[in-house]
Amino acid sequence: MSEKLNQLKEILGEVSDLNHAASVLSWDQNVNMPPMGGEARGQQMATLGKIAQEKFTNDQVGKLIDELKNQFPPASDEANLVRVTARNYDKAKRVPASFVAEQALATAKSFDAWVEAKGKSDFSIFQPHLEKMVELVQRYISFFPAGNHPYDTLLDDFEPGMKTSEVQEIFSALRPKQVDLLKKIKSAKQVKADFLHKKYNEKKVWDFSETIITQFGYDWKRGRQDKAPHPFETSFSVNDVRITNRFEADNPLATLFSAMHEAGHALYEQGVNPAYERTSLANGVSLAVHESQSRMWENLVGRSLPFWEYFFPQIKKLFPAQLAGVNVKSFYKAINKVEPTFIRVNADEATYNLHVMLRLELEIGMVDGTMKVKDLPEIWNAKMQEYLGITPPDNARGVLQDVHWSSGLIGYFSTYALGNLVSAQLWEKINKDIKGLDDQIRAGQFETLLGWLREKIHVHGRKYDPQDLVQKITGSKIDPTAYTRYLTRKYSDIYGL
Amino acid sequence: MSEKLNQLKEILGEVSDLNHAASVLSWDQNVNMPPMGGEARGQQMATLGKIAQEKFTNDQVGKLIDELKNQFPPASDEANLVRVTARNYDKAKRVPASFVAEQALATAKSFDAWVEAKGKSDFSIFQPHLEKMVELVQRYISFFPAGNHPYDTLLDDFEPGMKTSEVQEIFSALRPKQVDLLKKIKSAKQVKADFLHKKYNEKKVWDFSETIITQFGYDWKRGRQDKAPHPFETSFSVNDVRITNRFEADNPLATLFSAMHEAGHALYEQGVNPAYERTSLANGVSLAVHESQSRMWENLVGRSLPFWEYFFPQIKKLFPAQLAGVNVKSFYKAINKVEPTFIRVNADEATYNLHVMLRLELEIGMVDGTMKVKDLPEIWNAKMQEYLGITPPDNARGVLQDVHWSSGLIGYFSTYALGNLVSAQLWEKINKDIKGLDDQIRAGQFETLLGWLREKIHVHGRKYDPQDLVQKITGSKIDPTAYTRYLTRKYSDIYGL
Repeated sequence: MSEKLNQLKEILGEVSDLNHAASVLSWDQNVNMPPMGGEARGQQMATLGKIAQEKFTNDQVGKLIDELKNQFPPASDEANLVRVTARNYDKAKRVPASFVAEQALATAKSFDAWVEAKGKSDFSIFQPHLEKMVELVQRYISFFPAGNHPYDTLLDDFEPGMKTSEVQEIFSALRPKQVDLLKKIKSAKQVKADFLHKKYNEKKVWDFSETIITQFGYDWKRGRQDKAPHPFETSFSVNDVRITNRFEADNPLATLFSAMHEAGHALYEQGVNPAYERTSLANGVSLAVHESQSRMWENLVGRSLPFWEYFFPQIKKLFPAQLAGVNVKSFYKAINKVEPTFIRVNADEATYNLHVMLRLELEIGMVDGTMKVKDLPEIWNAKMQEYLGITPPDNARGVLQDVHWSSGLIGYFSTYALGNLVSAQLWEKINKDIKGLDDQIRAGQFETLLGWLREKIHVHGRKYDPQDLVQKITGSKIDPTAYTRYLTRKYSDIYGL
Repeated sequence: MSEKLNQLKEILGEVSDLNHAASVLSWDQNVNMPPMGGEARGQQMATLGKIAQEKFTNDQVGKLIDELKNQFPPASDEANLVRVTARNYDKAKRVPASFVAEQALATAKSFDAWVEAKGKSDFSIFQPHLEKMVELVQRYISFFPAGNHPYDTLLDDFEPGMKTSEVQEIFSALRPKQVDLLKKIKSAKQVKADFLHKKYNEKKVWDFSETIITQFGYDWKRGRQDKAPHPFETSFSVNDVRITNRFEADNPLATLFSAMHEAGHALYEQGVNPAYERTSLANGVSLAVHESQSRMWENLVGRSLPFWEYFFPQIKKLFPAQLAGVNVKSFYKAINKVEPTFIRVNADEATYNLHVMLRLELEIGMVDGTMKVKDLPEIWNAKMQEYLGITPPDNARGVLQDVHWSSGLIGYFSTYALGNLVSAQLWEKINKDIKGLDDQIRAGQFETLLGWLREKIHVHGRKYDPQDLVQKITGSKIDPTAYTRYLTRKYSDIYGL
């Protein structure tokens, strides 16, 4: 068996090398590539993707999987490696290469159309392309056995094992609580946050962001932070996990929270068992669990009062003029200011999930045919009014704002909100396990927290399915109550509800 | 035929994509990679190389080549594409994959041993590894039909069509002239150059290097310059041609000449016919012709008096204290100061080729067995005394100085000197074709020069073999007389010979 396992690992290793090479090319495209390099880069990445797909869907992989199934103790790394590989193989085999090529071509055109449509705030430019994207995901779904809901197939690619009905149930419980909380906040006295939008020196902010994530435990011998149009995390191996960030003059301190967010992803990737390298068990297990890590470091840690009790004197020393008259409590309130906004990526913790829920409803409607693409702008605006109490002045700040659908990424959004929920579930468990965690954070100490995350989550990579992992750690599957408790407590304090 | 040609081009395109992806990974390794990323990166690059090799040596490629041979007019791009592909295919097929893997493994060990040996200046640490490298190149040679000299096989990989006997003949004519010139310079009054080694601000030097190469015509929309341990040029497509550079505090202005050198390579790559992209005709044709471009911009242009008549006022304005009391003539003399040195990469134009000739003699001796590896330090030092009149104080500054042999790169060195010779041959022809070129350079105008190089050399990529290209342009094959004339004239002026 061990010889066959090695044969399988050798193929998986080559596929992993090809995918990681493509990730390097993509990172370079975002961080370094000169303006005219794009066309050749696109071809190079398409070739790497095609060869990786060919190698992985080779019948020999299927044969090895069949021979290796049920040959190892169920809880072993080997059994889980075979199990996860079998699932990925089954998915990859179902989708014809010709479909992948057609989708890639249509997606490139759709992306260009979306850029133009968003620029002109004209949905009609994007509409036929979005219709094509929906048709393509419907065809994609048709390659798989019918589940309870066609959307299950899409969701499973991002959150293995998760069902549409489960997400709907979670969101149904959560939505009224968040809408209600938001109403209470809106009727309370608003906090002052103008000092966050003064002029801050970019280099000082950038360096301070690195001070913070260094203290979190981000390992610079195995990573780096670069400027890019959008913040993201990417890994080329457990020993090369990079993050990007940006600086926006009108929202200068967002750089700090982006660094904490991406470092949260990166700490996860840097903590996966090195023995899983170049196999199906490498990397974080799902988007929701990944997002639980990034949101925990960004929000549960980075937007907490104990955190700023430690770091506020430092930032005040860096920016004495900008923060004149501001104390740690008023700073804490300002960075947690709640204000419904049209744009998801700028949303605060009290409203973020509402943006996501709106998108999920529209995605499900598109996929099962209960909503027509042409009606989406109207539906979008109505739901914005219902959930957030505001109506976008144009489609650029409405239905056209996100890149995801233009790239055929349908099934992805809900993981952002699920990640928030998981972060709060974990946080309650962490605070039971680590006594005095607030005091540690107040002293700028994060080793115990990181050690806990490493042991409970990071090291396992993809060995356990996401819902099983959350259950194993917290005693229940993904559940909205911890997040509701967290939000209510936090905003009751800040807004005196 | 056009369908079969397209089939061939599709395979060549994928091979090119894989090789360019590997180049991106290598560039990143030199410029960005965090310290611990090396092991995974090595695996990724090995996988890309292996798959590229497998795809290129697939029998289908051979079949397509056979079917496409003699199907196109001999001078056409198509005929030359098939011809060059056939040559590369024949070479690739002769070398077993198992040999390539063995060589890669031995080379990695040899490189590590060389690093240690150089650090300790202890040849005995490197000796067994160099013996292994020699054994491997001898086995490599055995895969090919016997030529006049076993070294021919190695040389042909770097300089297609060039024979060992031709290089020996060229070097035999050149060596006494250079040794003689050096003796005359040594007995002349030395020029003053201490001001070149004062403290210069790194950023100002770096920015000035970019000012210069921008004026040369380096296209930043299709390139960039980054810091790396060693200067090099690399291209991922005709639209993404990058250079690296470094700053050495004890030799600060070397950054300017490295930028001009690497930009010379890059201008070549940026100028290749875009129609050759992803085929065997893309990229510069050989190392010698490539080096003729880099050395031309670095030396014939960048170390000339007209060039500094334009740029000296600028550098004097940037560094008034360092260049106090220096005028353009004394600056010109200083940057052309001749002084035999132990280290090739620091050598001036009057001595550089002598370093190369020494290495060629040792390589030929190793390969044909007339020299034993264990005797190399002694032979090296004797030849240094004979050609340059100096004896290295230790092996680190002698036989251990270059990385090439540790990586199995035997057959490469002579192209450095051949490039110098070609640069002077071209320069004589250019000055016949472009009247008043010196005046243009004196006015900071390089468009006509670059246009000439584009038309005569760059655009052709690998369509013509290097010796044919030189013949076609200058009327003769590679020949040392133009370079001898150039050196004699230049140093007679500087040293008043």
